[in-house]
Amino acid sequence: MRLHDGGRAPNPRRVQIFLKEKGIEIERLQYDINALEQKSDAFTRLNPMQTLPVLELDDGTAIAETVAICRYFEALQPEPPLMGTTPLEKALIEMWQRRIEIRFLLPVAYAFRHLHPGALSIEPVQVADWGRMNQSRARDFMAILDTELKSRAHVAGAAFSIADITCYVACRFLKPAQLAIAEEHTALRDWLERVSARPSTRYD
Amino acid sequence: MRLHDGGRAPNPRRVQIFLKEKGIEIERLQYDINALEQKSDAFTRLNPMQTLPVLELDDGTAIAETVAICRYFEALQPEPPLMGTTPLEKALIEMWQRRIEIRFLLPVAYAFRHLHPGALSIEPVQVADWGRMNQSRARDFMAILDTELKSRAHVAGAAFSIADITCYVACRFLKPAQLAIAEEHTALRDWLERVSARPSTRYD
Repeated sequence: MRLHDGGRAPNPRRVQIFLKEKGIEIERLQYDINALEQKSDAFTRLNPMQTLPVLELDDGTAIAETVAICRYFEALQPEPPLMGTTPLEKALIEMWQRRIEIRFLLPVAYAFRHLHPGALSIEPVQVADWGRMNQSRARDFMAILDTELKSRAHVAGAAFSIADITCYVACRFLKPAQLAIAEEHTALRDWLERVSARPSTRYD
Repeated sequence: MRLHDGGRAPNPRRVQIFLKEKGIEIERLQYDINALEQKSDAFTRLNPMQTLPVLELDDGTAIAETVAICRYFEALQPEPPLMGTTPLEKALIEMWQRRIEIRFLLPVAYAFRHLHPGALSIEPVQVADWGRMNQSRARDFMAILDTELKSRAHVAGAAFSIADITCYVACRFLKPAQLAIAEEHTALRDWLERVSARPSTRYD
């Protein structure tokens, strides 16, 4: 199998970190997203949505969507668990992974795509009002998240999980979205410092 | 356990259909989303995101987010499987469930929330340009989906899955978003007719 990868873009980063946490190394092909290499005819045959990353199996089957790729590896190699083991853990990690994705990573991405001049290649029609609305939503969510992180070590509970990976990537994407973690959100800042110290989060 | 339910709104409908497919009946408390009952203090303590549905366990643990609730029941009662059994099935169903959600249900919801006067109670600041952009994205996705459904019975493969549930709910939500399935998309129309005939999709 081989991973069609997308460098430092948020979704490729999520799979890269997930694989490092699992200790899995596979062949990777790098694409330049800003040069729109994911819109080529060859890649569109692999993934009609034209998004990275994509995991291509040896028989040619393509698994697209970040979390689907993660789930495939979680099922193939359950240790260390990053998506929960009991029904309740699985549900709570899914809940937080989705909250982070829908209410934090997505608003941060919308803010970048609809406000930053550097995003025009991937979002040719920017809607600035939508970008600003999402900056505000991301700020609201960080306040909720900071409160949650006062009472536990990681986003979805005591253990590190895929929800922390998504949250880490969203935090690292704040700056191009003209956002930042507020000084008073010390629980979120402490959490980010701890997760940033994990070897899996180093880009290479 | 009991389900904090939201009537005919899209996410509550997804959990209702999932439970019927599983043959699971549980206590349900109905909330009126248009009357913003999900913004009460009591409900906010249960789910700070103020969204429905929420599954409340007997010990008070709250599981929010539609797919997290579905995953909990899938783990508790695997039969009939709606989220796959092998690693590859799990990955492909996750891939399609997410494609449908992010590229179809979400754009349809954005179109409704940012264009329909009836959505002002839940989306007080509407951004019409964003709504229209999402109408166009939903149309683009329906064309891709129609092509896919020419070669298989269900959204993620031969078997009915959670991806079909999300897709069904998105299709039923097209009208308030001022969208419709095009006449020429006969594979998508046939699929919708077959899924609509399943007893699980009847609202009660």
